[in-house]
Amino acid sequence: MQRLPLVFAAVAGFAVSAVTLAAIKPDTAVAYRQGVFHAILWNFVPMSEMVRGRARWNQADFSKRAVRISFYSRQLLEGFTPRSLTGRGGAKPGIWTHWLDFEVKMHAFEDASAALALTAKGTDEVATKTAFAKTAETCKSCHDKYRKDD
Amino acid sequence: MQRLPLVFAAVAGFAVSAVTLAAIKPDTAVAYRQGVFHAILWNFVPMSEMVRGRARWNQADFSKRAVRISFYSRQLLEGFTPRSLTGRGGAKPGIWTHWLDFEVKMHAFEDASAALALTAKGTDEVATKTAFAKTAETCKSCHDKYRKDD
Repeated sequence: MQRLPLVFAAVAGFAVSAVTLAAIKPDTAVAYRQGVFHAILWNFVPMSEMVRGRARWNQADFSKRAVRISFYSRQLLEGFTPRSLTGRGGAKPGIWTHWLDFEVKMHAFEDASAALALTAKGTDEVATKTAFAKTAETCKSCHDKYRKDD
Repeated sequence: MQRLPLVFAAVAGFAVSAVTLAAIKPDTAVAYRQGVFHAILWNFVPMSEMVRGRARWNQADFSKRAVRISFYSRQLLEGFTPRSLTGRGGAKPGIWTHWLDFEVKMHAFEDASAALALTAKGTDEVATKTAFAKTAETCKSCHDKYRKDD
């Protein structure tokens, strides 16, 4: 246990020290879910560029990114903690007043991106592009209803 | 291909449209890597709370979070793109002038968190805590040299 002071130091190094499981600050939840969305976007945009023919098709790279997005998709819901509706985030209040519908939409994204990851592991470019479009539709479906306009 | 307009819409919904693989904007890279760091922190803090005895030990939850951190650790390096040293981020210029050393430190984090994920899958609480402390040391080692003070 003599190494524990380093654990404290590492947490302090992240500049967050008073967060507990029982009381996640709204700003922490917003930073988390926005972080995961940014990580999704980082991978989604190059995939979109390939689908649109603006970048050369690369099945292996596409597959790698699809696996990542499928992973990230499953991390999002927990970031929408109760009372984490703040001015900072892009979340509309409807998320919390229509939670079950929001959950359904998020699970649709999880399912579509899992199917995309599976399809992209193969060699069928058309099927991969179709699965990508289906995934993008689940993004849009949720954004249209629950994401603030810029 | 009739679904592609929805792909455009989905990308537009993310409010980023002009990013290409060939020219990633520095701000995009900073948002990405900060996002991954936030996702790491989201999982790291509850693990630290368990290690410190402030939350009840839960091997299954700890293991789940360790797997996530191991995944995230492998996504970080690509976010430190050339010319992505901006005022916004916490990155010090030394990252780019000592790139090989930075890479070694990042790989040490990847390796330590992979070992942590493996250990945490078991039932040895002490070994898991030790592996966590070793992982935290790799965080600190890199932060001390390459992360701006708050």
